[in-house]
Amino acid sequence: MPDARVRAAAIGDVDRIVELVYELAAYEKLVEQCHLTSELLHDSLFGDAPAVFGHVAEADGVVVGYTLHFLNYSTWEGVHGIYLEDLYVQPDRRGTGLGKALLLNLAEIAVRRGYARVEWSVLDWNEPSIRFYEALGAVGMDGWTVFRLTGPALARTGRGTG
Amino acid sequence: MPDARVRAAAIGDVDRIVELVYELAAYEKLVEQCHLTSELLHDSLFGDAPAVFGHVAEADGVVVGYTLHFLNYSTWEGVHGIYLEDLYVQPDRRGTGLGKALLLNLAEIAVRRGYARVEWSVLDWNEPSIRFYEALGAVGMDGWTVFRLTGPALARTGRGTG
Repeated sequence: MPDARVRAAAIGDVDRIVELVYELAAYEKLVEQCHLTSELLHDSLFGDAPAVFGHVAEADGVVVGYTLHFLNYSTWEGVHGIYLEDLYVQPDRRGTGLGKALLLNLAEIAVRRGYARVEWSVLDWNEPSIRFYEALGAVGMDGWTVFRLTGPALARTGRGTG
Repeated sequence: MPDARVRAAAIGDVDRIVELVYELAAYEKLVEQCHLTSELLHDSLFGDAPAVFGHVAEADGVVVGYTLHFLNYSTWEGVHGIYLEDLYVQPDRRGTGLGKALLLNLAEIAVRRGYARVEWSVLDWNEPSIRFYEALGAVGMDGWTVFRLTGPALARTGRGTG
């Protein structure tokens, strides 16, 4: 894997990351739900006191993959962890170790900071990814379901208090 | 519901929240996995630049419930959301609206800040909670599984990079 590296995202990467976000949304067959803009991502990553963080994978000088993560929290450990919101490598660059390098980068950050865990969500039909994650020793949290309050139900609920 | 209210956690609530965390762990039948201490929770909630936040529910002047949350991120919306790590009300105080008030408090914060969503995880066997959440309009994210890299597998993976 010559000339490949993972580094923290810089302001100049924002437009390229947005392109890759739309590629990932297309891969997940959910592109119509994607409303990200370069301005929104710029403000999220590089505004005051950011709470979301990006890394990119470069191959031959071109950004071909990225991660976005935020800090979660393990109440039972009393320490933070990393939640990997997105991990993406362009299809024609897969199999070259970049996806693994992006994930190892976050695991390394977690270990260095004494965090409890690295977590992420996977679509149940995405078996190639599941095999990749299990080979690293990650475990699927079977028996738990994430519930989401969003859209009109969130607006209605969030207006309900005094 | 006289003399009941939800407010942001204060430093003086830390010991009591830790007690309630252990009660919740017992309810989830996982108390042996809980290693939280008052010192860890104090540092998490009230250290420099905290990334986890607490609220408590009081009834008759006693803290009988709490939430802990952190900020997640919706890449596709380009804005943050709230991830509710814990919501707990003591069993003998349930049915008085305190659980709903704790959740509505976070929904209200989310709406006020323009966040995309409030999310949390539920054990699949916890049907009373699932019915409560669905009645609010929350939707289970079926088809997704959270993967977790932790313990020895995290340590091994996080040492793997240069």
